[in-house]
Amino acid sequence: MAESIRIDALQYSNWNRERFEEWRQGDLTAVHVTCAIWEDARASLSEIARWHRRLIEHEDLLMLTVGGDDILEAKRRGKTGVILGFQNSSPLEDDLDLVWVFQQLGIRLIQLTYNTKNLVGSGCWEERDTGLGLFGKGVIKEMNAAGVLVDLSHCGEQTCLDAIASSHRPVMITHANPKEYVGGAVELAQRNKSTEVMRAVVESGGVIGLSMYPRIAPDGPACTLERFCDMVAWTAERVGASNVALGSDFCIGHPQEAFRWWRAGRWSREPAIPLSGAVKFPDWIATPARFGNLAEGLRKQGFSPDEVDGIMGGNWLRAFTDGFKPRP
Amino acid sequence: MAESIRIDALQYSNWNRERFEEWRQGDLTAVHVTCAIWEDARASLSEIARWHRRLIEHEDLLMLTVGGDDILEAKRRGKTGVILGFQNSSPLEDDLDLVWVFQQLGIRLIQLTYNTKNLVGSGCWEERDTGLGLFGKGVIKEMNAAGVLVDLSHCGEQTCLDAIASSHRPVMITHANPKEYVGGAVELAQRNKSTEVMRAVVESGGVIGLSMYPRIAPDGPACTLERFCDMVAWTAERVGASNVALGSDFCIGHPQEAFRWWRAGRWSREPAIPLSGAVKFPDWIATPARFGNLAEGLRKQGFSPDEVDGIMGGNWLRAFTDGFKPRP
Repeated sequence: MAESIRIDALQYSNWNRERFEEWRQGDLTAVHVTCAIWEDARASLSEIARWHRRLIEHEDLLMLTVGGDDILEAKRRGKTGVILGFQNSSPLEDDLDLVWVFQQLGIRLIQLTYNTKNLVGSGCWEERDTGLGLFGKGVIKEMNAAGVLVDLSHCGEQTCLDAIASSHRPVMITHANPKEYVGGAVELAQRNKSTEVMRAVVESGGVIGLSMYPRIAPDGPACTLERFCDMVAWTAERVGASNVALGSDFCIGHPQEAFRWWRAGRWSREPAIPLSGAVKFPDWIATPARFGNLAEGLRKQGFSPDEVDGIMGGNWLRAFTDGFKPRP
Repeated sequence: MAESIRIDALQYSNWNRERFEEWRQGDLTAVHVTCAIWEDARASLSEIARWHRRLIEHEDLLMLTVGGDDILEAKRRGKTGVILGFQNSSPLEDDLDLVWVFQQLGIRLIQLTYNTKNLVGSGCWEERDTGLGLFGKGVIKEMNAAGVLVDLSHCGEQTCLDAIASSHRPVMITHANPKEYVGGAVELAQRNKSTEVMRAVVESGGVIGLSMYPRIAPDGPACTLERFCDMVAWTAERVGASNVALGSDFCIGHPQEAFRWWRAGRWSREPAIPLSGAVKFPDWIATPARFGNLAEGLRKQGFSPDEVDGIMGGNWLRAFTDGFKPRP
């Protein structure tokens, strides 16, 4: 198993060396990190540039990965590959050209919306989701050409369905859980995905990253490893084990202001979404260093060795290898 | 001579296919084009992206060139290489990181100032030039590391001398003429360079691009090919023929508003520099299609075939091949 690829398809921690050491302890081959939540083009340049400096400063632990070959190279070198992405299309402003600009700067995934309406579509916290408009469809076409993957994790139902219909290439859910399995009792239940959307994502060729984030995981903060793996099995039964993977949503070490920024940005005086601050992940996955517990749990759940390899990272590797290739 | 490299180190025309056909007619191997005059970071992204689309649309005539190998490849393919640059450090705003961002997007030369003071230094039209400050020195260090060449063409005297002293790598003058030779009678005489600055540039390992732009050329719009080549010879006597080259400053097809923007930007109600609008280049160099006349003129002036090759492009090729290499 030491040769397996492990990929976490979403983290947005308060970055420092300790976080990167945890990645190595958890034998993570690659991690998709967030460079924008509400930021515009200019502010996103700065966050991407901060990653450039982090990659130099911690080059013994990290390397930038912009394609499947890079991810395999990170594995060979014993480093963790950093995949850059946005959790909002706000950095694109109203300008299709910026898809290409950010692709050039290493961005490989863009979530179409964060929690609210934007120029592309609607997030999962809006009352009414009118789906994609003219600009939204143009953005997807441009992303398809540039080799930048469409991520639907925080998008509303209609926006998800429209995006899947509009995209000529596979679309992804990097970090969300099945609404039908988790139910409505968890704090951010609204973020989770309908079975219809999950099936459509997989039909497009996409992969679904299930999340240990306590606010969307089954039983919330009380989620056990066994319960989590049972959710993986439930999902795999519906969409196939080769289309399920992991996206933790680790957000370690942030001050309260960061949570306020994510929930309210500049667009709301009071967070429209319950503001509760930092969250403790269950002990078995307290930090990315414990990622190996998931492989163990999946084996006990009855997945075959190949299935475990796929869920732990192989399925993302397949999706990213093809998805990051430009097709002008 | 058909195998010689021809490089024009500055053009900023109102781009369309006709301009690119003129490049091919003039057998231009590469042209350095301007992507910013007063633009900030965000606006510069858009102009760089417009070049991305032009390069796709006219890919039968053009290719992006970001290193010496690319320029040789453009020659082999019978295309004109496009070298992207800024005529101001305004796109960097106050952020050293943006040097790396723009390098990633293909920018290979940055003129430290346009005509006025900015955060880096002073342009040639300011009464008092206080040279480089703390940020200016930091910018040069970052450019040296990134493989982005320092261009001094529009900078004031002290800013030029400070930049040369501060840079660990060769600095360039892409488009200006010797003040001592041209004299004060031409419209923008103030733009031309002192012999002291030219000698210091060459001592740094830099190259000087002499310009046919009628507002800074000897005898202004009446400049003959012979007079121009005499200026080249005069300059070569002082700094060596292997350090002299060409930078036309062609600015064809712009409406009057463009000239107003260059002279006044957003920083002045009335152009502080005489505003005279479009300018006709002398007949022998009316468009880039006539670039070959220069080779002929230089031969008649008495330059050796090797010297002519160097001045027409070989000297820029040498400077760009080394200068565009990052040295982190």
